[in-house]
Amino acid sequence: MKDISQKLTEFFEAHLPITEFMGLAVDSYDGKQLTLKAPLAPNINDKQTAFGGSLYNACVMACWGFAYLKTLEAQIDGNQVVVSGTIKYKRPVTGEIKATCSTPGDEAEHHFIDGFKRHGKGKIELKAAVLCEGKVAVEFEGTYAVLKNS
Amino acid sequence: MKDISQKLTEFFEAHLPITEFMGLAVDSYDGKQLTLKAPLAPNINDKQTAFGGSLYNACVMACWGFAYLKTLEAQIDGNQVVVSGTIKYKRPVTGEIKATCSTPGDEAEHHFIDGFKRHGKGKIELKAAVLCEGKVAVEFEGTYAVLKNS
Repeated sequence: MKDISQKLTEFFEAHLPITEFMGLAVDSYDGKQLTLKAPLAPNINDKQTAFGGSLYNACVMACWGFAYLKTLEAQIDGNQVVVSGTIKYKRPVTGEIKATCSTPGDEAEHHFIDGFKRHGKGKIELKAAVLCEGKVAVEFEGTYAVLKNS
Repeated sequence: MKDISQKLTEFFEAHLPITEFMGLAVDSYDGKQLTLKAPLAPNINDKQTAFGGSLYNACVMACWGFAYLKTLEAQIDGNQVVVSGTIKYKRPVTGEIKATCSTPGDEAEHHFIDGFKRHGKGKIELKAAVLCEGKVAVEFEGTYAVLKNS
């Protein structure tokens, strides 16, 4: 699994300059969970905690990355976009940001890939969370679509 | 009004390093609308359009900034936080990002400031939008709170 998450790192480096500024990187991937991490310093706010926008970016890309790795595993090549996102800030994040997207389950994953294969459009809803000192600090939910490259 | 929006620029420079990377700056403020702008280059994605995370950051800070300027105008000094945010991506943004937060109306503004003055906590819901070629490309809605500094 290590090799395939390297593809996400390469994607960040090639296409998303803001992820370099944030120091956003793959922490771990095991096929069921993807965790992205980013240091606090470039993502800090006036309260010396993580900026809400950086927390959103880490979450939106943890889910985007999870969906992206699923398309790579299924060997499909599409144009993947985020359709919508909702984030709730429950407590401050006082150190390194770690955003984890967990699988929504085999059925939802299959529906996503199958939709693309059959109809040229796959959709998936994914959740991510950021913990701080063992407690949920941030909850994120996003909708993603993969479309045939035009 | 020009002077007071300068305070927001100073806040970005002092406290939010990511806004400097993004090139996020005040475009205009007239007491009823705050527009933030950011160039495409540092905020670009793989499709050569604006990255969804940067669009969120521009929107979340347009609304945060609007609320911040309202607290300055009311001469109250609190700790202002974003509680939650929802964003919908409707079409790609192919050039400069301009995120505009419009007043939710006098009553909501009054409730926000008055809640802080009376109870030490003010809450406000604010909306922002990003247009591209005259059409709404992004819709954002966020909840913000201002609390007494502890």
